[in-house]
Amino acid sequence: MNIYDISEKAGVSIATVSRVLNGNSRVSEKTRQRILAIMEETGYQPNIFARGLGLNTMNTVGILCADSSDAVLASAVYHIEQELHKYQYDALLCCTGYDVGVKEKYLGLLLSKRVDALILAGSNFVESDAEKNQYIIDAAKEVPVIILNGYLDAPNVYCALCDDADIMQQVTERFLKKTDRILYLYRSLSYSGRKKAEGMKRAFAAAGQELKPENVVLYNGAIDETKQMLLERYEQGARWDVILTSDDELAVGAYKFSRAAGLKVPEELQIVGYNNSKPSICCEPEISSVDNHLEYSSQNAVSMLMRVLSGEQVPSRITVSGDIIVRGTTVDL
Amino acid sequence: MNIYDISEKAGVSIATVSRVLNGNSRVSEKTRQRILAIMEETGYQPNIFARGLGLNTMNTVGILCADSSDAVLASAVYHIEQELHKYQYDALLCCTGYDVGVKEKYLGLLLSKRVDALILAGSNFVESDAEKNQYIIDAAKEVPVIILNGYLDAPNVYCALCDDADIMQQVTERFLKKTDRILYLYRSLSYSGRKKAEGMKRAFAAAGQELKPENVVLYNGAIDETKQMLLERYEQGARWDVILTSDDELAVGAYKFSRAAGLKVPEELQIVGYNNSKPSICCEPEISSVDNHLEYSSQNAVSMLMRVLSGEQVPSRITVSGDIIVRGTTVDL
Repeated sequence: MNIYDISEKAGVSIATVSRVLNGNSRVSEKTRQRILAIMEETGYQPNIFARGLGLNTMNTVGILCADSSDAVLASAVYHIEQELHKYQYDALLCCTGYDVGVKEKYLGLLLSKRVDALILAGSNFVESDAEKNQYIIDAAKEVPVIILNGYLDAPNVYCALCDDADIMQQVTERFLKKTDRILYLYRSLSYSGRKKAEGMKRAFAAAGQELKPENVVLYNGAIDETKQMLLERYEQGARWDVILTSDDELAVGAYKFSRAAGLKVPEELQIVGYNNSKPSICCEPEISSVDNHLEYSSQNAVSMLMRVLSGEQVPSRITVSGDIIVRGTTVDL
Repeated sequence: MNIYDISEKAGVSIATVSRVLNGNSRVSEKTRQRILAIMEETGYQPNIFARGLGLNTMNTVGILCADSSDAVLASAVYHIEQELHKYQYDALLCCTGYDVGVKEKYLGLLLSKRVDALILAGSNFVESDAEKNQYIIDAAKEVPVIILNGYLDAPNVYCALCDDADIMQQVTERFLKKTDRILYLYRSLSYSGRKKAEGMKRAFAAAGQELKPENVVLYNGAIDETKQMLLERYEQGARWDVILTSDDELAVGAYKFSRAAGLKVPEELQIVGYNNSKPSICCEPEISSVDNHLEYSSQNAVSMLMRVLSGEQVPSRITVSGDIIVRGTTVDL
């Protein structure tokens, strides 16, 4: 018996049950009594330590993040924490790593404690294998779950993300007017990694051009390894006019490859990074990059959550556009 | 009346009082009874919500961090969180910004809640103006305070840091054998910023050479601003053979200045960054940088704290050496 079952039995939203548990006065006395009666009847036990049956909350939100030392995820965590503080909520940070089993364990740990909600910061929380997302769906039966830069269609799950497929399609289309020798280099099969690949494929399909499988490369290496990998392929005869990447560090790897191969950037090779993060402005020329407005989505994530906690109806997804920041590594954008 | 007063009255360490409050069994029954008696006698009220008089703890540590979106601080927060989790402690993250007043407010907020200890992540928490550190000293009367990369001499304050002055002296001495046209560029008057400057000055003094005031520059700008600032000074006639910086982003700014001024690196200008962070490996040549072993100190910070919480005597300071990572921007290291 959990908050989700109670809401079904009472015929009200989870948010309304949450409001009653949180002592929010914006529930009619009649509804409040009905929900409390169902709770008593079903023997529902909220985590008393955490909420104290309609008295108050711990005002604490759990943030799960695979690796907060990753600059992009760190920025997300920072902006989430800043927003939460504006609403007098504390941030309990859990760095989970990338393993699904460990993520699940940490999430359970947070739930067993005292969080009012969970924010999963980063696209890597939504796996392509649906079964692996079940633990998130289950968690959402207990507290609202917000996913930053990922999307999962489930009750009580809310998503704030960037339209990665769309911007990647736009970027690819612009290059496709000149060349189809476009390489897409991406780090993981995370939700956004898949969406970016999808956008690229859509652009090729719309132009009626063939995207060679060897031009979509999944590669999770450091800067220098990326350079070496590209160099080996180049020495084996691979040729590209454009390299698109799923993050700026891969783009820096591509930039270093261009130097090692003696290719002029942007005349002989154009490079586009993603995230508009620090690494893109550390080399010369600076790297053109897609701004996915992570700060904005982090704020969206928290403001959505606050509305959910106060019992408002909110859309289950807010999507922002990605935008191209043109710098020195491109001429055709 | 606080934990500090109790320890004085009982003639035991703060750690011992903390052990009693935390229900740790490694206190003799006699000592435990004496401390509890003093608490009763003085009307001492521990934060019951937080600790529950010797019954249990919330197992939560507050991490204060000026800006966790800063790559170096983010890495520190990440490693601290990972370590805390090994000991079954949760991390409550507070991003304070750089203003002392705001830091103090956040710290008070955490104390009023439920943390077993505080970790101040980052050198910027220890100001040169002693008065501005009083709130930290006061906080340490309530719970143990650990400072990462800063040093403050006060009861119940423990510090894990890098010997920045020593490594900076070593680096400067090596260059001084060839030239005294050495610029030190630093971002803030934080504890480590001051220590690095001190190390550089010691090297000049030891060599009996004069360090010109205009060659120690305090500058808090982004990469491109740093480049412009150096370019302006260069155009006004300033000349340097070596630029030492207090962080890698300033070093990237110096690298960009060298390109704009047409100076060959490392032949005509040598550059050394600090922190051995991502920006140092994003340009070509990659930037030589001092590794201050922040990950190691983060782990030291947590293991010190765990010993304090379990009532052990620990040194008030653990210092690691800094080490030079030689890359392409130097020849004389």
